[in-house]
Amino acid sequence: MKSISSFAELTMHLSSLNSRERIAVANAVDLHTLDAIFHAVETGIAEAFLIGDVASIESPRLFEQEPSPYIHIIDIPEVEQATVEAVRMVKSGEADILMKGLVNTDVLLRAILDKEKGLLPAGNILSFCGALEIPKYHKLLFFADPAVIPSPSVEQRIMLIKYSIETTRKFGIEKPKIALVHATEKPNPKIRYMQDYMDIMEKWRAGEFGDVIIDGPLDIFLALDRERGSIKNVPSPLLGDADVLIFPNFESANAFYKGLMVFAGAEMSGILQGTSKPVVLTSRSESVESKFYSIAMACVIS
Amino acid sequence: MKSISSFAELTMHLSSLNSRERIAVANAVDLHTLDAIFHAVETGIAEAFLIGDVASIESPRLFEQEPSPYIHIIDIPEVEQATVEAVRMVKSGEADILMKGLVNTDVLLRAILDKEKGLLPAGNILSFCGALEIPKYHKLLFFADPAVIPSPSVEQRIMLIKYSIETTRKFGIEKPKIALVHATEKPNPKIRYMQDYMDIMEKWRAGEFGDVIIDGPLDIFLALDRERGSIKNVPSPLLGDADVLIFPNFESANAFYKGLMVFAGAEMSGILQGTSKPVVLTSRSESVESKFYSIAMACVIS
Repeated sequence: MKSISSFAELTMHLSSLNSRERIAVANAVDLHTLDAIFHAVETGIAEAFLIGDVASIESPRLFEQEPSPYIHIIDIPEVEQATVEAVRMVKSGEADILMKGLVNTDVLLRAILDKEKGLLPAGNILSFCGALEIPKYHKLLFFADPAVIPSPSVEQRIMLIKYSIETTRKFGIEKPKIALVHATEKPNPKIRYMQDYMDIMEKWRAGEFGDVIIDGPLDIFLALDRERGSIKNVPSPLLGDADVLIFPNFESANAFYKGLMVFAGAEMSGILQGTSKPVVLTSRSESVESKFYSIAMACVIS
Repeated sequence: MKSISSFAELTMHLSSLNSRERIAVANAVDLHTLDAIFHAVETGIAEAFLIGDVASIESPRLFEQEPSPYIHIIDIPEVEQATVEAVRMVKSGEADILMKGLVNTDVLLRAILDKEKGLLPAGNILSFCGALEIPKYHKLLFFADPAVIPSPSVEQRIMLIKYSIETTRKFGIEKPKIALVHATEKPNPKIRYMQDYMDIMEKWRAGEFGDVIIDGPLDIFLALDRERGSIKNVPSPLLGDADVLIFPNFESANAFYKGLMVFAGAEMSGILQGTSKPVVLTSRSESVESKFYSIAMACVIS
């Protein structure tokens, strides 16, 4: 498989598979979620179960045109109940992907984290993996965690790295290059996160992560900019060519990606990781495109 | 004074003043530092004292042309000694600005932090203030702290805010808009830094910061992007129009600005704050332009 280096390539790849992933959407009533779902159905990559309060659906398209055989509506007016049913469908295998519609995030998370009926296997951690398409970068840039884990412990960080390796492999990246990001490339155990990074580098050298390249601490210049990175004269096996950024904390990951969306024309997709099946958890403010890319990301991972 | 909203306006403003700030440069022997200094002297904004190891000067320009009456060379071959002399000149009033040349940062910091001979008044904190010129933003964007204080305490953060108010006023911004940045705009005291932000908001409401606008927690969308911020439906008096970003920690400030330099064509200047006189502390890898903008920033603050 050729590696997927843009969202356009991702969509083409999924279309070429001629198979649809089944998505259970919890309370899909808002316009952006519905339009993203319609687009995924029309592109031939998804079949959708819209579970929620039919009376409050915002999109007239659902009723205007010939109903698609790949869109199924399940009327459950109570939002929490609809969410639980969507999770049940995914857990039972009736659907492959869970997606958040107009539901409060904490309601969805409660359903996912339910020990009996939820989607998080024991020993796994819930986290968020984003993928950025930045016009001036030569490939997709995966990163964690901008949203769920504020300040990962070293054990959690190792899980984040392992999840990111699984994710990038699904995108056809055989030997992903993973940068442990910090403000400086000088390892100093007195600075927060540095000791964790040094421990992870040791585990990587011992082969714990398999056939991947990990380097850190690295700053953004060294991880993503060959020219600026070279001036620093710090040899790195991934200089300017990272596939994955593991950020020290969610404050830094969040400011980084939002800055690039506002000022560098970046587009983003994202899914929850650690769950037994992919979960698409976008925010109400996200564009239709962004929600569609997240659906596509979930489909390729599924 | 009209507010200065770009580096070009900053240079024009300084040129129009017809006065030169005197800069003491510790071991100015590397090409980028020297070229930035030459440019500042040629633009008419600076007079330079180059204190250091003359034998190792990298720039042939110094000796090729008619020496400028505004460039003075003081030969002190030993770097630490040269640094101490540069600090002494600034402290004594023989110079207005200190600048780092080819000196290790810790050597310069040691000289600055010396209790007797240094430049940090008791009770002040040493920190870094950057100013970004981002092609897609409508004005300069000031921010702190990407380099010096890893995780500011609430007292340190209040100082950072006060320094940034002084700095923006020197740029003619009468009522600066200051955003306390976080991953989310929802104040939750369980999340790191949030309680500090809530305390600062209370002090601001009580008038402690004077005639400025402070709001937080805000994410990058709310602080810098009127369109994306509006969708969130969070009323903010600075929506999409921040002059200053106070970041939660140096990991987030650092990743933010470096991402924008690599992918959004941003240029940066920066100085040390908290010292009795401005200090220009750029890294060896920075471009001549970047070093020149930092000199200009120091000149307008001086």
